[in-house]
Amino acid sequence: MKGGNAVTTMHGGDVEGYRRAYGRAPLDFSANVSPLGLPEGVRRAAAQALAAAGEYPDPLCRALSEAIAAHAGAAPAQVLCGAGAADLIYRLAAALRPRRALLTAPAFSEYEAALRAAACAPEFFLLRPEDGFALTERWLDALTPGVELAVLCQPNNPTGRTVPPALLRRALDRCRDCGAVLLMDECFVPLLDEPERCSLLPRLAEYPNLVVLRAFTKTYAMAGLRLGCALCADEGLLGRMRAAGPPWPVSNVAQAAGIAALRETAYVEALRALIARERPRLRAGLERAGMTVLGGEANFLFFRSPDAALGARLRARGVMVRDCADYRGLGPGYYRAAVRTAPENDALLRALNGGIG
Amino acid sequence: MKGGNAVTTMHGGDVEGYRRAYGRAPLDFSANVSPLGLPEGVRRAAAQALAAAGEYPDPLCRALSEAIAAHAGAAPAQVLCGAGAADLIYRLAAALRPRRALLTAPAFSEYEAALRAAACAPEFFLLRPEDGFALTERWLDALTPGVELAVLCQPNNPTGRTVPPALLRRALDRCRDCGAVLLMDECFVPLLDEPERCSLLPRLAEYPNLVVLRAFTKTYAMAGLRLGCALCADEGLLGRMRAAGPPWPVSNVAQAAGIAALRETAYVEALRALIARERPRLRAGLERAGMTVLGGEANFLFFRSPDAALGARLRARGVMVRDCADYRGLGPGYYRAAVRTAPENDALLRALNGGIG
Repeated sequence: MKGGNAVTTMHGGDVEGYRRAYGRAPLDFSANVSPLGLPEGVRRAAAQALAAAGEYPDPLCRALSEAIAAHAGAAPAQVLCGAGAADLIYRLAAALRPRRALLTAPAFSEYEAALRAAACAPEFFLLRPEDGFALTERWLDALTPGVELAVLCQPNNPTGRTVPPALLRRALDRCRDCGAVLLMDECFVPLLDEPERCSLLPRLAEYPNLVVLRAFTKTYAMAGLRLGCALCADEGLLGRMRAAGPPWPVSNVAQAAGIAALRETAYVEALRALIARERPRLRAGLERAGMTVLGGEANFLFFRSPDAALGARLRARGVMVRDCADYRGLGPGYYRAAVRTAPENDALLRALNGGIG
Repeated sequence: MKGGNAVTTMHGGDVEGYRRAYGRAPLDFSANVSPLGLPEGVRRAAAQALAAAGEYPDPLCRALSEAIAAHAGAAPAQVLCGAGAADLIYRLAAALRPRRALLTAPAFSEYEAALRAAACAPEFFLLRPEDGFALTERWLDALTPGVELAVLCQPNNPTGRTVPPALLRRALDRCRDCGAVLLMDECFVPLLDEPERCSLLPRLAEYPNLVVLRAFTKTYAMAGLRLGCALCADEGLLGRMRAAGPPWPVSNVAQAAGIAALRETAYVEALRALIARERPRLRAGLERAGMTVLGGEANFLFFRSPDAALGARLRARGVMVRDCADYRGLGPGYYRAAVRTAPENDALLRALNGGIG
């Protein structure tokens, strides 16, 4: 396959790679994106923005930052927009250039990639199968003085486990006491059953060492457009993150789409209702098919299969799930699948049972 | 003005900043973008791509890289796409992390910004007013062994001067002999009267230390969409550039737009004809208005005004030009203006002469 390299195997959602290998489009459960498609209001705003594509996009994303701030209960100066959450992870790593950083394993691999690009070899807190891959109080002990950046993901990708609010608060205190920045990746929080309970956004003002990451990718099916944001009360740190990368990170299309997306409350409610309905059904189906479901509280499920070649087998049947064998801290037999619409979930279950997806 | 910081004053094209200050849209000569607007075929392709915005964009930009390679006479593996040329400048600086780098002054400020973000304090070769800001053979002497990266811009932004092909070849040899990578920023080459004569693209295979930068921004009025590419025969270096930043640099909209743009040969011919017609006319008008035009061979003119407050005065009259006072190596009284359509150029000349633009 032409152009293949580490990137293609490291993330879900490589639909183009699938198309080139199989000559057709897959049913993609490997990326945890809303299955409801781009909201119509967002598509319209994005299409209209094309008329202004001759202008440079606003480098400061002023209107978008104001809309995000109003939505999040923060000040516009506490918002930095980027080309997806990954862009902001790289900017934070480059701005801090920490000597020591603490990640969990398994976790989204771009935390480690961004730190290595910033010449930092991170330390790993291993989430244990015997804890159901949940974050435990042991993490507080691993966060020793000298750690300058800690990263947590709520709920954790790919394990689908949330950190209980009481432990979150202790983590935040521990980071402050150690002088560490806590990057809290909340890209999946809007898709939890109780988003407010699990978010640290209300703590921003109290903890200037807290950086909350949000993405538009998952909630609004905007993965193709590249838009995410970081919220932080330390405006100096946001300024250093801005200076750490190119000055026009967000296209004018993504800025317009983002502003429109924040008005899509009915869409988000419908999506949340769909997930609440379909997740237990998909979970039960996976278990009936012999999988051990280990976690999943947002729009994806994390499971173990006795078949380490399940991913390849499903691909041949037209279905992509995320083979998690390449995650640090995991190995063959671990998989992640998005929760999609009822007919799509049925297709995944059919494919799991040997049929065509 | 809310959200103001260094970025707003450092680049042309801050239309949003103008709108917020003046409550209306400016006539913008401060960004050197095609005045013909997004080609209709590109707009259509971009709008169609919105239907697939729920998918992650191809991280490797496979189809786009193949189209660029065919267009440039290179191999797809010699192409790396990014979110505008600036993205690729940051990736190159981060991938090389040179101890020593040689820039010219004045030049596009992002070369320096990207190197500083990579912990490199660059050296500067000063282009001299007495040389008409042209690059001379003195540059070859400034490129001493130990320099790991040299950057040239053809034609140079903001001075509008091209490097003669014979000197270019000697520069390339000198870089190879010193073990330096030469980043050749050719973002404006397609808008020169003789693009082929001034491009180093045909030298790629011969010089693996050559990185040629191209943008879609200027030629196709795509500044808002963010798309550029680097071409280099050293695929290892391109791989390190890819790993130096987030894995999905180019939106699916920009990928589709880029593929469509490469088919727009009639648009580019019309644009080149417009520039050939309008540039001498605008130049003559600037000179009649008391300006000293110092350079300009693509779609912009570089000039000196006896009035150091000309930029502010023009803004008040509804017209933005690029005040070049903040460029390293320049000072008050230097300006850059894009070549636009005849009625727009007339409006600039009216504003220069005290009227409303």
